[in-house]
Amino acid sequence: MIQVPPARPGQSEEEIDTPALVVDLDAFEANLDRMAEFSSASGVALRPHAKTHKSPVIAHWQMRRGAVGQCVQKVGEAEALAWGGVPDILVSNEVVGDAKLARLLALSGIAKVAVCVDDGAQVEAAERAADAAGRRLSVLVEIDVGAGRCGVQPGPPAVELAQRIAGSPHLIFGGLQAYHGRAQHLRREEERERVIAEAAAHARRTVEQLRQVGLDCPIVGGGGTGTFPFEMASGVYTEIQAGSYCFMDSDYALNLDRSGAAVSTFRQALFVLTTVMSRAAPGLAICDAGHKAYGVDSGLPQVWRRPDLRLTGASDEHGNIAFTPETTAPKLGEKLRLVPSHCDPTVDRYDWYVGVRRGRVECLWPVAARGRMA
Amino acid sequence: MIQVPPARPGQSEEEIDTPALVVDLDAFEANLDRMAEFSSASGVALRPHAKTHKSPVIAHWQMRRGAVGQCVQKVGEAEALAWGGVPDILVSNEVVGDAKLARLLALSGIAKVAVCVDDGAQVEAAERAADAAGRRLSVLVEIDVGAGRCGVQPGPPAVELAQRIAGSPHLIFGGLQAYHGRAQHLRREEERERVIAEAAAHARRTVEQLRQVGLDCPIVGGGGTGTFPFEMASGVYTEIQAGSYCFMDSDYALNLDRSGAAVSTFRQALFVLTTVMSRAAPGLAICDAGHKAYGVDSGLPQVWRRPDLRLTGASDEHGNIAFTPETTAPKLGEKLRLVPSHCDPTVDRYDWYVGVRRGRVECLWPVAARGRMA
Repeated sequence: MIQVPPARPGQSEEEIDTPALVVDLDAFEANLDRMAEFSSASGVALRPHAKTHKSPVIAHWQMRRGAVGQCVQKVGEAEALAWGGVPDILVSNEVVGDAKLARLLALSGIAKVAVCVDDGAQVEAAERAADAAGRRLSVLVEIDVGAGRCGVQPGPPAVELAQRIAGSPHLIFGGLQAYHGRAQHLRREEERERVIAEAAAHARRTVEQLRQVGLDCPIVGGGGTGTFPFEMASGVYTEIQAGSYCFMDSDYALNLDRSGAAVSTFRQALFVLTTVMSRAAPGLAICDAGHKAYGVDSGLPQVWRRPDLRLTGASDEHGNIAFTPETTAPKLGEKLRLVPSHCDPTVDRYDWYVGVRRGRVECLWPVAARGRMA
Repeated sequence: MIQVPPARPGQSEEEIDTPALVVDLDAFEANLDRMAEFSSASGVALRPHAKTHKSPVIAHWQMRRGAVGQCVQKVGEAEALAWGGVPDILVSNEVVGDAKLARLLALSGIAKVAVCVDDGAQVEAAERAADAAGRRLSVLVEIDVGAGRCGVQPGPPAVELAQRIAGSPHLIFGGLQAYHGRAQHLRREEERERVIAEAAAHARRTVEQLRQVGLDCPIVGGGGTGTFPFEMASGVYTEIQAGSYCFMDSDYALNLDRSGAAVSTFRQALFVLTTVMSRAAPGLAICDAGHKAYGVDSGLPQVWRRPDLRLTGASDEHGNIAFTPETTAPKLGEKLRLVPSHCDPTVDRYDWYVGVRRGRVECLWPVAARGRMA
């Protein structure tokens, strides 16, 4: 059942029912502008990852600023975007299962869609699905550039798979998927740069070997919020797939620049608004947002601009906020902004974004692909 | 947007689209029967916690076996249950905010509802809301029986709050909420017994002091899947609020009985069904269920009945399953059952339960209160 919208446009932030997913629109727009400048200055296209925002509304904001399309991880996300008018969607992931492939092909009448493979059996399944649908499907080869998750090895194994795609009557070889997930959260800039230099070398070598067998790479995709300047500067990546940059989170805030300071390229734009619902325990304020209101895979959220308050524990529906005797204790009913440690799995718990600008609710946007993990 | 149902009745488990939330109906019914026997033998009522299952369908199954009603944590959950025909609902939690209280009162035409308080300001707000609605509302006092989260101190502070409720024209004093959350997951049975003995002593003393001022406690509620035999035997608790027992999870499976063996009262009935979507990395099978498909607050899921397979990591949409050279490696497209480490926040990510009996899909049930955290 869909959640009841937690606010109405025109209300004050104080009036938003909680827990709620709040977007600071000034910070959000600044983040979108900033990334559009990076893309424009580098000449490398931006295809933001909708696994973060799950919203056609946000996809269109990004594309109005020059993004060439969207990435998704799941067919269900591709559906939500295509149904919301997004014209160019890359599933930057393998899709296994005939029913899922048929759903993806069914979108090709209203959007340009593409998918990744890392196994010959996936190429065969994609060919069967495209044949059955009477469509041609663009298929990229995912290569493992060092993260050790999905992807064939760069070089000859990738070339062989690309040739199988190119030799399939209903498939088009779309290029290389060369994303390095783990690199995004390496704390030191030197480390991130080194790891992406290696990833780019793998991609470059594979692109050259493909050219030798007569195959062009329309897309060489990768890069995330933590590393995109290095992919942009590599000369081999043609598309950047960053997602989190539009919102940010407390985990990305731990990444450091060369001087050892926190990277400050983007602003924190996403919050979980919560209410203090119990003040009975000494030294503790209990808020109404727990494990069901934010992801904890990267740690507990932080209280925004309140270094005197610290989330020390959470249960399913409660967060424990500790405060010291020196501070102004949070009052019963007081509203606080929490900064999620990881934006993607937090967004995925909500049906609505509440867009706020300078304390006023400006808009409500559905999280259209919320929960669409299949 | 609601998830597409991942299966149709009559399909085989193999045909379920993934990730999906699967209930083994034989195990689930056995768990319900078992708990009903405990309740019946002890003479202590069962009011299962719907924060776990979020489903009027399951609530009715429990009530057909004798449960007196349901607990919830949130007004949104109370709405989903009341709208699904559940006649007796206790919000075993504080509700802060006039809009939320008005929503709760609005349900009192179709269900008996009650709520907890741990602060005089909450009593005043409840009185205002009940007056405005022209209804009388049952209000329980939550006491802190040792968990240190919500709840006033037992004894005089609780009595004072109960008197304020009883003295409010539109409120009825409903009893005591005396749940000890932390005790549920203490591993040794002796520890759980000791902590609940203390909780029961706090509750007993408070019940006696209330009686001395002429206040009866229609409900003394508490107890969870980890400790309920002790609350049932205490002589003071009148209602047990266990939730997880209907499904179980790998965290509860770590609780030990007196002999040091794993407690085996209930069977594992809840699973996340997943598909192997990549086999490119050596020694790893990548499955299609990650942080968006299960809670990790109590650790990563386990692979059901495959001790040779181990989930070693997860990202938003991927799970890394390691296997040893000695075992039969999972194949691309193979389906595996994962056992969530914590059932409540896992269920809350899905719109559908897929009920399976002996390999066949028997039913689909909506997770009606999914995401209803406000």
